[in-house]
Order: sequence, then C-alpha cells, then structure tokens
Amino acid sequence: MKDYKAYIKYFEENLKKQKFDHHPSELYQPIEYTLSLPAKRIRPVLTLMASEMFEGDIAITLPQAIAIELFHNFTLIHDDIMDNAPIRRGKKTVFKKWNSNIAILSGDTLFALAYQYVQLADKDILPQILNVFNKTAIEVCEGQQYDLNYEVSDCVNVDGYIEMIRLKTAVLFGASLKIGSLIGGASEEDALHLYDFGINIGIGFQLKDDLLDTFGDENIFGKKPGGDILANKKTYLYIKAIELASEKDKKVLRNLYRTKSKKDEKVDAVKNIFTKLNIHEAAIKEIDKYYHKAIQALEKVNASVENKKKFLEIAQKMINRQR
Amino acid sequence: MKDYKAYIKYFEENLKKQKFDHHPSELYQPIEYTLSLPAKRIRPVLTLMASEMFEGDIAITLPQAIAIELFHNFTLIHDDIMDNAPIRRGKKTVFKKWNSNIAILSGDTLFALAYQYVQLADKDILPQILNVFNKTAIEVCEGQQYDLNYEVSDCVNVDGYIEMIRLKTAVLFGASLKIGSLIGGASEEDALHLYDFGINIGIGFQLKDDLLDTFGDENIFGKKPGGDILANKKTYLYIKAIELASEKDKKVLRNLYRTKSKKDEKVDAVKNIFTKLNIHEAAIKEIDKYYHKAIQALEKVNASVENKKKFLEIAQKMINRQR
Repeated sequence: MKDYKAYIKYFEENLKKQKFDHHPSELYQPIEYTLSLPAKRIRPVLTLMASEMFEGDIAITLPQAIAIELFHNFTLIHDDIMDNAPIRRGKKTVFKKWNSNIAILSGDTLFALAYQYVQLADKDILPQILNVFNKTAIEVCEGQQYDLNYEVSDCVNVDGYIEMIRLKTAVLFGASLKIGSLIGGASEEDALHLYDFGINIGIGFQLKDDLLDTFGDENIFGKKPGGDILANKKTYLYIKAIELASEKDKKVLRNLYRTKSKKDEKVDAVKNIFTKLNIHEAAIKEIDKYYHKAIQALEKVNASVENKKKFLEIAQKMINRQR
Repeated sequence: MKDYKAYIKYFEENLKKQKFDHHPSELYQPIEYTLSLPAKRIRPVLTLMASEMFEGDIAITLPQAIAIELFHNFTLIHDDIMDNAPIRRGKKTVFKKWNSNIAILSGDTLFALAYQYVQLADKDILPQILNVFNKTAIEVCEGQQYDLNYEVSDCVNVDGYIEMIRLKTAVLFGASLKIGSLIGGASEEDALHLYDFGINIGIGFQLKDDLLDTFGDENIFGKKPGGDILANKKTYLYIKAIELASEKDKKVLRNLYRTKSKKDEKVDAVKNIFTKLNIHEAAIKEIDKYYHKAIQALEKVNASVENKKKFLEIAQKMINRQR
C-alpha cells in the first residue's frame, strides 16, 4: 500500500484522463468544471486503499473510485441548488455560474455517468457493488431530505442529528470502503467491518466540520468562522446547546437562529452561549466517541497490522484536522 | 403473449404492490403520488411484451419494466421543474404541489430506486442490462438539454429536431424493448432490431404528439389544441413551417412565437400559416416515414409472425391514435 498522498496523486492523474467533453456542451461543461475544482478526494482514496488492503488491483479499482467521486459531486451540485449556496470549493456553484435547470440536468447526468463506472466492475462482483451503490445513493437522498426538514423544525435532538449526518455523509464513506474492499477480494464480513469503520469516521468527520466552522482558526481553516451560525444551521453544537441551556438561554439562541443577521455580533453572541455551556468540549467528546467506534471496527478487520495502520492514520487525520 | 390491455393490467396491479412508503415522508410521498397518477404505461408494457416475444418469464421481467417506469417518472418530475409546468396527467406537478427542492430530491431518489430494480436482473445478463440502462439515461438527459437549448435558439432544423426527440423520447422506447428482449433471451442482433423498432416508433410517437397538440380533436384528445403554440414550443410543425414559409410568413411566425399571448387569436394565426403550408400533411408524411422504418426493423426480428403482429398493432396504434 502507498501512502495517502500517493493515492491522491494517482487518483487526480487518472480522473484528469477521463473525458467528459461530450455534447451538448451546456450539459457537460458544468460537469468538467465541477470535477476540475480542487477537492480532498477522501472518498475515492478510501476506495483505492480498501482494495489494496486486500491485495486488490488498483487499476481495476479505479473505475469504482471514480464512480464514488462522480456520485459525490452530483450530490454537491444538487445540494447547492437546494441550499441556495453561491460558493463551493472557493468558486461559484454550478447553479450560480449557469442556472438551476442546468444544475439539475448536469447533476442527473453525473449520477448516470457514475453508474457507467460502476458497470465496469467484474461480472461476478457487479451485483454486490451495485447493491451497495444503490442503497447508499438512496440513503444520501434521505439524509439530505432530513437536513432540509431540520431547517424548518424546532424538534431536533442529538440522536436525530447523528442519524441525519449518518445518512447524508457517513454512508458514502462506508460505501467507498466497502466497495473498495469487495473489489479487492475481502470477505463480506471484513467488508462490513470496514463499512462500520467508514460510518464512524464519517460521523466524526462531519462533527469535526461543525466544530471547525464555529471554533476553527481562520488562518488554518481558510474561512472565517461562524458560517453555520450566520446560516442558522442546526449543527451538533446548536442542538447540544439547546439540550443543555437554561430556559432563558434557549430562548436567546432560538431567537438568534431566527434572524437573518449577517453581523459578527450574532456569531459572538451564539459563541458566548456555546462557550458558557462547554459545547466545544462536548463536541470533542462526541467526536472521540465515534473515533473509538471506528477503531474498534477496524481492529476486527482481518488484515495485516501494517495495512490497518494506514487506516488508523486516516482516522486520526480526519479527527485531528484543523481544516 | 397476452393482448396489450392484459399487459397494462398486469403491470398496474404489480406496480401497486410495490412499497414506496418509506421515511422521510417528504421524500417518498411525491414518489407515491407520481406513480399513482393515471398513465399510459407504454414503456413497461413494451418491456414485458419484448420478453414474452422470446418466451421470457414475465415475473422475472417485471422488475425491469418497473425500473423503466420509475426512470421515466423521474425524468418527468425533473423536466416539470425545468419547464415550469404546473400540470401533469391532469394533476399538479410535484414541484407545484410541494416545492422544487422536494421535486429535485424525490426525483433523484426515484432514479436510484430504478437502479434497485435493474439490480434484480440475473447476474449473467445484468452487465448488458445495466449498459443499456446507463447509456439511455445519459441520452435522455442530453435530449432534455437540447430541448432546453432549442427554446432559446432560432437555428433549429428538422434534422436537429428529430435528433433531439430521438434522445429525449425515442431511446427510452428502444431501451424498454431491448432490455425486455435481452431478459427474454433474445440474441444481441434481435435485441438491436427491436431497439431500432422502438427508436422509430418513439420518433413517430412524438411527432404524432406534436400534431395532435395543434390539430387534435378536443373531444377525443382531451385537451384544448394549441398548447404548444401558446408555449412557443418549437415542434416539428413550427420548424417545418419556418423551412417552407415565405420571408414574410417566417417573420410573422417568429414574432408570434416571441409573444407571451395566451389568446385564441395567436393559435388561430399560427394554425392558418401551418394550414397554408400544408404542414399537417408534411407531419403525417414524416410520421409515416418513421412508421415504415419501424416496420422494416420489426421484420428483421427472428420471431413468430403471430408475436410480431402484436408489435405491428402497437406501432399502428401509436401512429393512428387520436389522443
């Protein structure tokens, strides 16, 4: 197995080789644009790594890694319409750069293109891969719908929130690993343990995202903290705060999350309540909980200590990251 | 092989048995709503018939017929957002009844659900089925994009229009037949002939749609003629008229298609020009051309005369229909 950066390089080089410059250009230019933006590529790298963990052939695994990345980008294009988000990866979102019709349709096309890569799996393993892929695609849609529901609901608790991010974010980490490991020749049992590992680092990853968005260091994180607060996003921090706050602070928080203010004062007021309630520490504890669940799942995988160490490092990196 | 109506009955009964009442309900209610509306079910019936033409098992074919119908309904949900269409099958469209976010996301889910039915194909035939399905899905998106492009373009000719409806509409007829025949055990060659049959009746079907929308009998067609004209849709009739019209009439037509008028006078003025140019007859001739191409493809299929007769009847029905 290579190190993490070598996998990213391998994936980036091979993604660039894929041709998406078909006609009509109105449909394919947004796809090329989206795929060309700088991105972490965590999911496809997990697929490649999971395959090589079981001595799988990286070239045979590549189409599945591409399928995962295309699917992920499809969800981003559609989510950005729904969230009315102007910026993604530092650039204009597809629906802002073009329009929402083009974003809907190029997203749909990207979804279908992902399946064209899934289809390249060996005949004997294809039904299993397709099964994971389909189930995951549906769950990601369900997660996004829960997320949209939460925007207008006052009744969100921590369990409901974790379930939402499990569906919206974590299952795709799980699927990336499961598909990679199946291609590599893993047993169903090992593939499942790796899936569990992915689910738990996925949840941890999103919780860390929530934390960094509010308490991150601007110079390292790359954007000004408080975006989620200004957007009134009910992240783990908010939900936990509502759970722990006095009736008075609860009222203040809820009112702040109803305003459309884009002022620093709003961010400061919310952060003050979060700090008073030790929400930063609660979040770290929660992230730690899922990190340990992930490690437990990883330990059960029947693979060499050395290979497992690579995944341990990823889990640590994802949890400890400051950006 | 059963008769056409018996296939519809079989399909409707079995579609009703499928359960789509999962959570979150915001996502699945629009799916149940869409699938419950009265529809022609031509595509899934073609799949079932094509399979039985080659002695295929109808129960084994059913999931593929459902996949086709789910895919078709997914495209309708998304197209209605893009076309800003308020009514579909006599009822509110999903994006009007709920909102466009829910229409995007329940459409995406329906697309993924379609693949869950594709996945039920026998392992040995799955790669071929998936190949047809993916290719078709991408082509349908391309067709919709060409359609959107044509809305704002003045340079549409008959060839370009036929290519657009081939992608947007006809390939799904072709795929319905090809997938059915492959499940039934047809040779690649016969599956291809049946695909060609589907492409040509699909093009004929859409041209007939164009014709009925302008020249249909309101009492039989079920809606007031002129909808396409009021929506400034550049159908075959319009494109052919522009091709044949004098410079003066061309100007009049183009100007009429730039107004947002919803008045009967606009429909009458356009129809007068169409009539002067014998567009009705030109359309019938064009439909006939594709009907005969379809029959030629059908003749090449290696199947019993009796079984082929069923498809001949469908072709006639689709071309001769008055609604």
